[in-house]
Amino acid sequence: MDLLSALSLGELALSFSRVPLFPVFDLSYFIVSILYLKYEPGAVELSRRHPMASWLCAMLHCFGSYILADLLLGEPLIDCFGNNSSILLASAVWYLVFFCPLDLFYKCVCFLPVKLIFVAMKEVVRVRKIAVGIHHAHHHYHHGWFVMIATGWVKGSGVALMSNFEQLLRGVWKPETNEILHMSFPTKASLYGAVLFTLQQTRWLPLSKASLIFVFTLFMVSCKVFLTATHSHSSPFDVLEGYVCPVLFGMAWGGDHHHDNHGPHSVTAFWRAHRIPAAAPARNLSIYIISSLKLHLDCERISSHVETRSFDQHFLSTCAPLYAGCCEATSWPEQLTAPCGQEGCSLC
Amino acid sequence: MDLLSALSLGELALSFSRVPLFPVFDLSYFIVSILYLKYEPGAVELSRRHPMASWLCAMLHCFGSYILADLLLGEPLIDCFGNNSSILLASAVWYLVFFCPLDLFYKCVCFLPVKLIFVAMKEVVRVRKIAVGIHHAHHHYHHGWFVMIATGWVKGSGVALMSNFEQLLRGVWKPETNEILHMSFPTKASLYGAVLFTLQQTRWLPLSKASLIFVFTLFMVSCKVFLTATHSHSSPFDVLEGYVCPVLFGMAWGGDHHHDNHGPHSVTAFWRAHRIPAAAPARNLSIYIISSLKLHLDCERISSHVETRSFDQHFLSTCAPLYAGCCEATSWPEQLTAPCGQEGCSLC
Amino acid sequence: MDLLSALSLGELALSFSRVPLFPVFDLSYFIVSILYLKYEPGAVELSRRHPMASWLCAMLHCFGSYILADLLLGEPLIDCFGNNSSILLASAVWYLVFFCPLDLFYKCVCFLPVKLIFVAMKEVVRVRKIAVGIHHAHHHYHHGWFVMIATGWVKGSGVALMSNFEQLLRGVWKPETNEILHMSFPTKASLYGAVLFTLQQTRWLPLSKASLIFVFTLFMVSCKVFLTATHSHSSPFDVLEGYVCPVLFGMAWGGDHHHDNHGPHSVTAFWRAHRIPAAAPARNLSIYIISSLKLHLDCERISSHVETRSFDQHFLSTCAPLYAGCCEATSWPEQLTAPCGQEGCSLC
Repeated sequence: MDLLSALSLGELALSFSRVPLFPVFDLSYFIVSILYLKYEPGAVELSRRHPMASWLCAMLHCFGSYILADLLLGEPLIDCFGNNSSILLASAVWYLVFFCPLDLFYKCVCFLPVKLIFVAMKEVVRVRKIAVGIHHAHHHYHHGWFVMIATGWVKGSGVALMSNFEQLLRGVWKPETNEILHMSFPTKASLYGAVLFTLQQTRWLPLSKASLIFVFTLFMVSCKVFLTATHSHSSPFDVLEGYVCPVLFGMAWGGDHHHDNHGPHSVTAFWRAHRIPAAAPARNLSIYIISSLKLHLDCERISSHVETRSFDQHFLSTCAPLYAGCCEATSWPEQLTAPCGQEGCSLC
Repeated sequence: MDLLSALSLGELALSFSRVPLFPVFDLSYFIVSILYLKYEPGAVELSRRHPMASWLCAMLHCFGSYILADLLLGEPLIDCFGNNSSILLASAVWYLVFFCPLDLFYKCVCFLPVKLIFVAMKEVVRVRKIAVGIHHAHHHYHHGWFVMIATGWVKGSGVALMSNFEQLLRGVWKPETNEILHMSFPTKASLYGAVLFTLQQTRWLPLSKASLIFVFTLFMVSCKVFLTATHSHSSPFDVLEGYVCPVLFGMAWGGDHHHDNHGPHSVTAFWRAHRIPAAAPARNLSIYIISSLKLHLDCERISSHVETRSFDQHFLSTCAPLYAGCCEATSWPEQLTAPCGQEGCSLC
Repeated sequence: MDLLSALSLGELALSFSRVPLFPVFDLSYFIVSILYLKYEPGAVELSRRHPMASWLCAMLHCFGSYILADLLLGEPLIDCFGNNSSILLASAVWYLVFFCPLDLFYKCVCFLPVKLIFVAMKEVVRVRKIAVGIHHAHHHYHHGWFVMIATGWVKGSGVALMSNFEQLLRGVWKPETNEILHMSFPTKASLYGAVLFTLQQTRWLPLSKASLIFVFTLFMVSCKVFLTATHSHSSPFDVLEGYVCPVLFGMAWGGDHHHDNHGPHSVTAFWRAHRIPAAAPARNLSIYIISSLKLHLDCERISSHVETRSFDQHFLSTCAPLYAGCCEATSWPEQLTAPCGQEGCSLC
């Protein structure tokens, strides 16, 4: 009986949500965070020549989420530095990662199976931080949906959202990019997680907080471990965003770096090449509604026609119906109006 | 009787100062602010490729003044995000401006007569924000003149004062300029307005706050509508600054961009050409006092002499008396010592 | 008796720590701070063309330490602007330094003996600020060692730690360097001073606060006056860091700018030339322990041998023992294994 009740999902989630994070999970968080710092170009030389700057960067990597959340909520930025044991633990990890004799610590920690365990434990901390951040924001702003989401987001994303300034500390300045423009998987996942936890906190999601922590942790751990193991930079949200963003915003959210590599046949390149006015994607929402009626009839016909010219599949599902529906328009792209040369083509 | 009393200026100002800003005036503020964001080069493409960054920029344009004031006064930066209805309204405006089908909303709003109405309503909000900001600062710092002015200024200027960081969010970095170096009309007007409201708050200006709000709103609305209608970037303060700044600081405040176009005869070019030490303009204050006594006698004589060599009128009124008074000095500029060739010249 | 008791060190320190800083010492602080602003390239032209930006920079130079400390401790950034008399005093100094007739004020203040007095008085203020900052942080975080050190540090370093943003205000942007990467003497001294005052505050240093203020002020004044008088940029900590940092971090802290000038024979160049892996310096700690036993025997022999090839003395004391102890290793540097050609050389 006892065993069974302990195995029930609710009990498991509850006891999981009560596991203390310090010191084991926090240690993993610090190790993985400082590992990512060491991967940055120039970080090793920086640690030799400017240990103080390197240590400060390491602290930002470990406690960036607290600093940003404190800034947003008007609390002392230095609050997290009041916790001596955490700072000392993070400092010890920093010293071992950068200055351990024979680089032994780094080599052990970078060994893939070991690293995957640490990465998994880091995600446990991340999810817990999001939940705590939203609880904290809810305490100050009872109906502040946006405040809760923002606080949860920065608690989950950590140093990534302030990477420009962390780089500046190291003497590096890359203004042309930032984490908001090119969101990585953890940043996006933290945002979606913050939305979910906010829904839970305001009772719109019929789930206990412990269960949500458990489920979201499982999702984050499996995703991050898979991505780390395969050295992949893709994201499981790409598919969902590929459907939603073109409808809402006329183009896939943050998906540009994938599409840009597709050569002249990608959606972006297509739009550029044909000088479709910038407002065009904005029409997608209305097009979507209108075309959903026609889609059933037209879609297959166009597909077979255009596929032979290797257009982006993406473009087909969202924009082609528009062109199918306005055959007489003068803005009809050349590539589509030119006869394809196939016999029996219903469009030529 | 009732009609008359309602028409009296005091009553009118009082009732005007009690008109609620939400939602109509706030809506105009958001529309004009996000319009200016859309005018920025690259903003439309950003909204297509990175909607999240575009939305954040739009929020900074709408709520930048609150964020900056909260930062200065040590309150939560995210405070304004606690007001869900404002955020939702601003987000709706952002979506309509950037993604409305057929770009209809943008075209309507950009139609000059409509835009002028919105611009006028935005100025109403700006003046009210300055007044509220100073009232708020006065609550915390009873005798903090500089605190009140600074708070009123950032409340009135909004995102302009943090434009470098707003640009950074969009991946743009222009460190060589900022709003402090090149103040636009609203920024300057906010500063002067903040000084006036601070004087009113500390009882140095014998006016009720409602009257000051009314008068300053009238001034701001008429100026901004005129400037917007004529696509002008000049400022009604240029004349005043042209008199005060050379006396106080040796050169017109922010007026450099005008003077630089005047060719080799402008004050700046003259100073540079003759290698007058940088400290020279600093002497203007003392010169002003001394020369005001001599001016009566010398001015006409010098005027007629130097005018023939097409010197800047500006230089004449402030610096020529100096040279007139130290004829024997070795630093006498060549152009003035060389005989002018005119018959009967009293100086040659 | 009275004279004697007044002369006793404890009494002297106590009465010294009670001398009010306003207005004389504060005035010196403002004068020296704004002098350093005027030394910056382009600062004079800025004051002519953009007096507002110049004034704001001057205020950052005078009150930067308060602003940074307020930011860290979550207090209003604008707090120091609530003190009208300080702001007015600093503004008057700014006006006199930049716009005084005949540049008289600047010339007086820059006269070396006068400047040295002001520099000495500025250090008195700096030490007092560190002490006050740590007392203030201790009030909020009783056991927050890192919070106390950080607060004391920013209170002592002032605008230096935010120099990148102070430059940005002037339209200058130098991301490749900052005060953390290249610490000046006052910044380092403030850090060490903050550590000492933190130890005193937490009763680890058996000294009264008044005595520590007195002793540390004496040290700072003598160092800073000496460095200013000799126009030197070196630091009295270089010797200490030269011993400690190679042991802890594999290279002298911030000492790169000295070593880089030493040509191809410096430690850095040597390491680079021989492609010793980046982890190597990390072994110094273990090497230090092992080699300290052998050092007695080997040191002289190696010294005489290597000195003829003009190696850096630094390298000798820390790294040569390693090579002496692993003669058979294949990573033996060429220059050391090649015969030196001297007769009777015990190593060839």
